[in-house]
Amino acid sequence: MRGRRAVSTSRLLQRWWCCRPPMAPSNISPEFSIFKIKSEDIYHFKEILGEKNVIQDEDRLSTANSDWMKKYRGSSQLLLAPGSTEEISQILHYCDSRYLAVVPQGGNTGLVGGSVPVYDEVIVNMNRMDKIVSFDQISGILVCEAGCILENVGAFLANEGCQIGGNVSTNAGGLRFLRYGSLHGNILGLEVVLANGSVLDMLGTLRKDNTGYDLKHLFIGSEGTLGIVTKVSVLTPPQLASTNLALLACRDYFSCQKLLFEARRALGEIISAFEFMDCHSMEMVLKYLEGVRNPFSSSMYDFYVLIETTGSDEASDKSKLEAFLGRSMENGIIDDGVIAQDMSQTMSFWRMREGITEALVKAGAVYKYDLSIPVDKLYDIVLGYGHLGDSNLHLNISTATYDEDIFAKIEPFVYEWTAKNKGSISAEHGLGLMKADKIYYSKTPEAVNLMASIKRLLDPKGILNPYKVLPPSLILPN
Amino acid sequence: MRGRRAVSTSRLLQRWWCCRPPMAPSNISPEFSIFKIKSEDIYHFKEILGEKNVIQDEDRLSTANSDWMKKYRGSSQLLLAPGSTEEISQILHYCDSRYLAVVPQGGNTGLVGGSVPVYDEVIVNMNRMDKIVSFDQISGILVCEAGCILENVGAFLANEGCQIGGNVSTNAGGLRFLRYGSLHGNILGLEVVLANGSVLDMLGTLRKDNTGYDLKHLFIGSEGTLGIVTKVSVLTPPQLASTNLALLACRDYFSCQKLLFEARRALGEIISAFEFMDCHSMEMVLKYLEGVRNPFSSSMYDFYVLIETTGSDEASDKSKLEAFLGRSMENGIIDDGVIAQDMSQTMSFWRMREGITEALVKAGAVYKYDLSIPVDKLYDIVLGYGHLGDSNLHLNISTATYDEDIFAKIEPFVYEWTAKNKGSISAEHGLGLMKADKIYYSKTPEAVNLMASIKRLLDPKGILNPYKVLPPSLILPN
Repeated sequence: MRGRRAVSTSRLLQRWWCCRPPMAPSNISPEFSIFKIKSEDIYHFKEILGEKNVIQDEDRLSTANSDWMKKYRGSSQLLLAPGSTEEISQILHYCDSRYLAVVPQGGNTGLVGGSVPVYDEVIVNMNRMDKIVSFDQISGILVCEAGCILENVGAFLANEGCQIGGNVSTNAGGLRFLRYGSLHGNILGLEVVLANGSVLDMLGTLRKDNTGYDLKHLFIGSEGTLGIVTKVSVLTPPQLASTNLALLACRDYFSCQKLLFEARRALGEIISAFEFMDCHSMEMVLKYLEGVRNPFSSSMYDFYVLIETTGSDEASDKSKLEAFLGRSMENGIIDDGVIAQDMSQTMSFWRMREGITEALVKAGAVYKYDLSIPVDKLYDIVLGYGHLGDSNLHLNISTATYDEDIFAKIEPFVYEWTAKNKGSISAEHGLGLMKADKIYYSKTPEAVNLMASIKRLLDPKGILNPYKVLPPSLILPN
Repeated sequence: MRGRRAVSTSRLLQRWWCCRPPMAPSNISPEFSIFKIKSEDIYHFKEILGEKNVIQDEDRLSTANSDWMKKYRGSSQLLLAPGSTEEISQILHYCDSRYLAVVPQGGNTGLVGGSVPVYDEVIVNMNRMDKIVSFDQISGILVCEAGCILENVGAFLANEGCQIGGNVSTNAGGLRFLRYGSLHGNILGLEVVLANGSVLDMLGTLRKDNTGYDLKHLFIGSEGTLGIVTKVSVLTPPQLASTNLALLACRDYFSCQKLLFEARRALGEIISAFEFMDCHSMEMVLKYLEGVRNPFSSSMYDFYVLIETTGSDEASDKSKLEAFLGRSMENGIIDDGVIAQDMSQTMSFWRMREGITEALVKAGAVYKYDLSIPVDKLYDIVLGYGHLGDSNLHLNISTATYDEDIFAKIEPFVYEWTAKNKGSISAEHGLGLMKADKIYYSKTPEAVNLMASIKRLLDPKGILNPYKVLPPSLILPN
């Protein structure tokens, strides 16, 4: 992406338009200019949204044109801040009729360039869509707008004695996926605005509904390429009172696997996280993060595992965990272990695992990968940390400075190895712009073709988040 | 369906063919006969499957042409029994080229006529596809063929110390949905043969994979109208040692709701079922089922609730449940309660809940509904039992004999009331043939139109399980 010149999105749309005449009415002239934003467009958007929600300010656009890691940069000239589904519907209806490409943008915290304009797409910012629509205490079902900040929703729910599932709170997966499962299991409904502006109301608040195809799943994880999600209905689990956390040391990777096998059985219903990190990750954290101390004094081990339990009964949960650790020590599955004794120790254990990213950045250049790999193969590829409970490895290769030669040694090797071992090249982060052309490492050509057909069905002009997720060649044939 | 004459499916396909010329090659003559099974078709199928798996025997066809409740009857002349994905692929490729309609059939235990031929469709029987492909002990991930009988899979898993999730074991929802969630959360991957015979391999065994659109969800619950599922990869939870069951009595529906609210908090991680039945259901069971005795001696209450817990520690689980029941009694939420003391008492409690269907059949004519209704409205519509934990009501209206007048009073009232209260007209059972034209009670026109577009995309000739799920008028325009 470095040094890429800003070229108009419209050029590609136009190319496509030229080769797909059935899609465009014949009375529109194919001149380049029709796909550029004009003053009458701005006027129209101001009519819909009000003056102050149509933003052309350079500073604000500069922030929105780039991701937080400053890896991707677009050249959008226009940011729209709608406050309702109806406004988003009007925006898309208009953009679709004018062949103007759109990029939906939430917190813009993605890691793969999925929420950044590539060229001059119109940015549809979701920040004003931040209302909680309803909450049902008995069932724990929450309905909120899609721009809600998770921290705020979390605070609201804590007040109600519920919590947002670990997966929703980290958006894609995260630390407590093992317990609460995937978004697909917890999201009960969505409201989505399609490319042509029509509103698809699938906002059921029912846990069970077997009437017709379950369309909402198409949109979960589609990274804004099939529609703009405007409202979400989600099942929130009750907040349970007791949490325990243990940091354990294992001598080899096989022991970590064995520990997971035993923990799933012995701690069955209370296990809420099973995270692992290797000695390199631990060394980084101890070296670069302030205030982090080795809980095993000066001893270092090859592997570390964090096990968290969450339940309703403090005393019984703790004794269950202690008994499990005792047995694991006797059987030689673990070499050492500490149960956090208070909140501050709990936080410091989580800091080790969650601070790895920060420590790596301090150490120099990082090549980051987010892989799903069958558990037994997960550590064949060295140096990593991750969610062992659901076989997700965050592989980071850390060097003092960025080096093209090293990079050439890493890629495509990592992707090829992952594909060969039936893993996924993006477990949590999505494909975005960065990996759109790498989809074949994880999906068969038949599946990718079907995705492209669905994309063309739902967004025939290709205005939604172009160049993301699927290789553009499939969507914009030459 | 009663007394309907068997008409050839092909007639409708032909009508459709006539109005959709782009779909059919112009050199095929539109004569009716081309859509009928001919001797060369039989010859071809025998080449693919071997003589004995191409079944034209009248007795076997008669069984396969009807559902187990004898409510629907088709007139298929041919049943095919493939033994592999490759064979199914060849069958569909051929049927698609010949415009022969197909109905996939598994156990044929559906309640809505989804697995029965409507006219003379070719039946593709899945019984030979019953192999377990792989099982990973550490992650609990099972891959099996789609024709596996759940009882056999359950036995295999029990041996391995795992269990099939309650939802998978009842296919669609069932008694332990509250604990294990929907199929969409537990199915990790599918292999599907599409209408044209191409094989879509989405058989990932990874818990996390965010690469592209998650296509498998389209097929879950599509009742064989988008493709034939040939293999399934599913996450199985560890078998936990301790199960407790309590039968409780409540004075009103509000108390049942309150009990659910409290139970979700107090029993959080161990609750595995929360079922309710009203006094009418209980009376039926006591009157018509042999050997069922009222556990509260001669006392009758208005509402009954079954709470099941499943955990890893017998003693601590039981004391948690006892403490919860004690508190609920003190607070007046429940009026009485019994914890099952042994396996035989556990079985007799479940027999009350699970025997309702049987008791109703013995009592006379039954009008059955399977509704999802927000919890607070669930009992406004009277006489029922169901899965309160996930707000699923099985409404049964029982009369001595079938009566058209009574039926006219029930429908469309039940559907209209459910739609008005934002419920679903089919929580677990699907739409099948019976409810295909009722989909608009639960889904918006925009959503139904999108479903129809997806159906046309995946099955352009409409050969897969015609007349099911979606109103035929959408698929076969005049």
